[in-house]
Amino acid sequence: MSKKENGQIDSSLRNLFEDKNLAFVATIMKDGSPQITPTWVDIEDNQILINTAVGRTKQKNVARDPRIAISIADKNNPYHMVTVRGEVIDQITGEEAENHIDKMAKKYLNKDKYPFGTPGEKRILLKVKPTNVASM
Amino acid sequence: MSKKENGQIDSSLRNLFEDKNLAFVATIMKDGSPQITPTWVDIEDNQILINTAVGRTKQKNVARDPRIAISIADKNNPYHMVTVRGEVIDQITGEEAENHIDKMAKKYLNKDKYPFGTPGEKRILLKVKPTNVASM
Repeated sequence: MSKKENGQIDSSLRNLFEDKNLAFVATIMKDGSPQITPTWVDIEDNQILINTAVGRTKQKNVARDPRIAISIADKNNPYHMVTVRGEVIDQITGEEAENHIDKMAKKYLNKDKYPFGTPGEKRILLKVKPTNVASM
Repeated sequence: MSKKENGQIDSSLRNLFEDKNLAFVATIMKDGSPQITPTWVDIEDNQILINTAVGRTKQKNVARDPRIAISIADKNNPYHMVTVRGEVIDQITGEEAENHIDKMAKKYLNKDKYPFGTPGEKRILLKVKPTNVASM
């Protein structure tokens, strides 16, 4: 296990975020208990991007408490993994978030358009700044 | 997404725990922030079993706050998944925990003996009672 407290995601770990791996995202419920969900994930510079919908549990959680933890294991080798703790420093709705979910649909489903949208759903892009990075 | 608030893990979900899938486990750090780690996992009746070592971050976390969240995606079909929230209701050291890690080594590595033990390491078995179960 290698640990970094400067929040830097090494280039050897970037493929975990760039490949079609699911990320598991932990946030804090109103009562202080942990919540976890599998999600698609993206990386841009040293920020982790998570695209969710406004009003989902994890979005409400990070709006109240921005602290978040994210873990990814390589789908072809689960012992190549990374765990990040950090903070959601930005939550973006509108065109950027709507375009980004199509980028995720391309990555994970090889579809040009995200096919699972529901009427009235507003996408929201969570930008996560890592503070601690552990990898194996 | 199907949700159950009686904490019952349906038989259609048991294979997620019984197969060689990694579980992602979220606990609460002392400062109230979330922590997440990938772990081996087992199920017995309706309890989820996690075998860790005494003194590891997640063990210290659940000793202070037993609330836990666990998520598993099928390694062959990541859209077959379950997320459980619950509480660690028992922490067992000694022979039961030492034998159980060998059972996990058999399941995940096909080895009779757990090969990664370190000198002085004490295994501890966390027994989790699910309260909320969500699946897809």
